[in-house]
Amino acid sequence: MPSIFTRIIRGEIPCWKIAEDDLFFAFLDIAPMAKGHTLVVPKQEIDKAFDLPSDLLGKWIVFAQPIAKAIERTFPCARCGVEIIGLDVPHAHMHLIPINSADDLNFTRPKLHLNDQEMRACQEQILSQLIEP
Amino acid sequence: MPSIFTRIIRGEIPCWKIAEDDLFFAFLDIAPMAKGHTLVVPKQEIDKAFDLPSDLLGKWIVFAQPIAKAIERTFPCARCGVEIIGLDVPHAHMHLIPINSADDLNFTRPKLHLNDQEMRACQEQILSQLIEP
Repeated sequence: MPSIFTRIIRGEIPCWKIAEDDLFFAFLDIAPMAKGHTLVVPKQEIDKAFDLPSDLLGKWIVFAQPIAKAIERTFPCARCGVEIIGLDVPHAHMHLIPINSADDLNFTRPKLHLNDQEMRACQEQILSQLIEP
Repeated sequence: MPSIFTRIIRGEIPCWKIAEDDLFFAFLDIAPMAKGHTLVVPKQEIDKAFDLPSDLLGKWIVFAQPIAKAIERTFPCARCGVEIIGLDVPHAHMHLIPINSADDLNFTRPKLHLNDQEMRACQEQILSQLIEP
């Protein structure tokens, strides 16, 4: 069974896509901690982040960098935080979240419920800021 | 003023050191979320993680990888989680924390208070598992 992220990458499940290259795919989290919350996943379906081959691991966060910078420019925040948990979906994923306090990375908090129009606005705002590093 | 992490790297403040190379330094967090909680910092004093030059950013998580694998082998956990917050000390730092739930990365939870003997035991356990990747 492919993971839900593999199905998103394949286009079998719709998403608000942010970026893609041959190795990685980024899209908005549909249950965001904050506006702009983005997931970055390797296309290769590996469960634990630190089981990625080291070259892929390094490229992963480098792929995330311009997205994180775009998030920092787009949303009112002190900076873009990073969290890799991965206990829910067995396909490594990195959370990029605009934060103003450590509590903004506390996944036990209730998630936002954004409608399609709000999600599209987040996507468009990030894309407009997403320039090559 | 050098950051507290720079002073630790220089040996001006003692720490329970885990690993070091020419670019990075890793040591136990003295206010850990869990036994094994390790901080990994670039020696270059840059505040925001995503302001690191991209080659250094990639090397950072690759440097952290064998430490994270050692943590996963040492402490009872589902995996090693990652968090980059950075609002407290203006010197980029990556938290490596053994986790069993998302709440284990919730920094609003009370920290552990480990005595020197317990910290040394954590250090020795990680070092004994820390082999080249």
